[in-house]
Amino acid sequence: MVQFVGVSDIVKLINQVGLETVLRDLADRLEADFKRWPEFEKTPRLASHSRDGVIELMPISDHAHYAFKYVNGHPKNTARGLQTVAAFGVVSDVDTGYTIFVSEMTLLTAVRTAAMSALAARYLARPDSRTMALIGLGAQSEFQAIAFAELVGIEHIRAYDVDEAATAKFVRNMRGRNFSVEVAESAADAVVGADIITTATADKQQATILSENMVGAGVHINAVGGDCPGKTELEAAVLRRSAIFVELTEQTRIEGEIQQLAQDHPVTELWEVITGQVEGRSSRDTVTIFDSVGFAMEDFSALQLIRDIAQQTGHFQDIDLIVEPRDPRDLFGLLTEADAMAEA
Amino acid sequence: MVQFVGVSDIVKLINQVGLETVLRDLADRLEADFKRWPEFEKTPRLASHSRDGVIELMPISDHAHYAFKYVNGHPKNTARGLQTVAAFGVVSDVDTGYTIFVSEMTLLTAVRTAAMSALAARYLARPDSRTMALIGLGAQSEFQAIAFAELVGIEHIRAYDVDEAATAKFVRNMRGRNFSVEVAESAADAVVGADIITTATADKQQATILSENMVGAGVHINAVGGDCPGKTELEAAVLRRSAIFVELTEQTRIEGEIQQLAQDHPVTELWEVITGQVEGRSSRDTVTIFDSVGFAMEDFSALQLIRDIAQQTGHFQDIDLIVEPRDPRDLFGLLTEADAMAEA
Repeated sequence: MVQFVGVSDIVKLINQVGLETVLRDLADRLEADFKRWPEFEKTPRLASHSRDGVIELMPISDHAHYAFKYVNGHPKNTARGLQTVAAFGVVSDVDTGYTIFVSEMTLLTAVRTAAMSALAARYLARPDSRTMALIGLGAQSEFQAIAFAELVGIEHIRAYDVDEAATAKFVRNMRGRNFSVEVAESAADAVVGADIITTATADKQQATILSENMVGAGVHINAVGGDCPGKTELEAAVLRRSAIFVELTEQTRIEGEIQQLAQDHPVTELWEVITGQVEGRSSRDTVTIFDSVGFAMEDFSALQLIRDIAQQTGHFQDIDLIVEPRDPRDLFGLLTEADAMAEA
Repeated sequence: MVQFVGVSDIVKLINQVGLETVLRDLADRLEADFKRWPEFEKTPRLASHSRDGVIELMPISDHAHYAFKYVNGHPKNTARGLQTVAAFGVVSDVDTGYTIFVSEMTLLTAVRTAAMSALAARYLARPDSRTMALIGLGAQSEFQAIAFAELVGIEHIRAYDVDEAATAKFVRNMRGRNFSVEVAESAADAVVGADIITTATADKQQATILSENMVGAGVHINAVGGDCPGKTELEAAVLRRSAIFVELTEQTRIEGEIQQLAQDHPVTELWEVITGQVEGRSSRDTVTIFDSVGFAMEDFSALQLIRDIAQQTGHFQDIDLIVEPRDPRDLFGLLTEADAMAEA
């Protein structure tokens, strides 16, 4: 039997353990997996583009386990009352090729993106960062806010979205937390006094959420929303004056903010910073950017954590995705045995 | 909710409709899909090789639906009492990117491979073919035998496997069918008088199941077992004197029997024969070969058929693979709503 964590189970297991604990444990696991980065077999994601969106398969393996995520990106879905992203993930055993775990990954991707953003900020932001501007208050926003409060020590959030309903939802959801939320009047207003700027807007287009004159010295920019070809949030001038950190260079050149720059513009892979091979922030006044697009290894880490928690809490169900004939050469016997049982 | 057809449901739905009917309906659907071959977006499969096997993702889209199969190939699994192949498949809606259907595909792959073999033989074998040699009596064998009896008119099967237990299993499973089964003493004995030769052995190695002196004029060879790099069943000389038909040339050059030949050795794609653009068998004494490796479009056809039958018969379950928040921007609300319900 294959263990399956559906939406109801992942909600139960996150609530039982606590979202803050899940984010913290996931950041630890991401950090550990980034430290063994060269061990992973990395494959570019396999994308199928259509008029309104894209469907992707993102596989990765550490030679003990193989995992992949199915993920789409359909910006027009929101207008239809659907998620722009509706993902799921799978873990298999490399030795046998058998699938052992399946999980919803829409909620889990939001959790892992936030944990990843916070982990990157721990290495790149000024250690005394307390105020974060959060621009874009969609499905990702609450997870980003809680992750930065929990893992980076953010105490004040200056929030902005063009959509008042999204803003109201964010404020309502973040009431009573261990950080204050101030609604800004514009993106430019939100970044005033911010140590960290997180952009997580959803429009699939070249947008300028953050222009050069909005970014002060020493800021860390957590650029979450620019994550596919044709979708960026930062003015190119912001990128040119900053130290840029990426997950996997070849992927980010296509999908990230740096698609706006020359193919040889210098960037640093985050695993080199996490392993201590390369410096992160070089001075207090450097502008750092984590050009986040989401890499398969992060999904691997997230799936492994949720699999562990599912087993600890019992919040999963068994599904018969894989045949278990008595004799592996007798697949046909599955049909005749069932027939015999039905007649008996 | 996503519809899920697990092993117990696929067994029930195949037995309710009848395997013969499923094979016939699937061959019709394969034929219809091959006729619209240019409409499909074809992507090479994405393979992850390890010491003992391979794990692959095989995606395809007709721009209305996107499907992919997860499939492994682990020859040593049999010795551990496991399937060499343990596959599942997914269908999604291209417009929204939402996954709508998940099915086991170990059993279903055997069914679709057999339906595909029989469909190819209808176009390539002599119409008066009545005797088939079946070499390799593993998990595929019964499905091949029934498909050829049902769809091609085979009345006599000359069966051979090096393994006596596999042979006994095949004979037991095929008792009381509308074709006779004769156990041959060797592969060479099996092919005597055969109009069609099906090779479906499982060893992952360059093997010579069929050598040049075993193949008489006018035979159709259904080469099922040679389906990955390093795994072939036919002597190269057999290939050189035959008219070779493939699914997708670029894939078969890597995975099929023709990996033994030069990259420019002439082959014909089956869709060209099925659409009537190219002749299949040119004379009664031509040797034809269907160099079967299995293409993603065939899994697409099989998944769509099983999805229809599942809906007709009710043999499926709903699984909560995809989140359905009241507000798509309020993913976080899923956690707090569940909390509020738990407290109420």
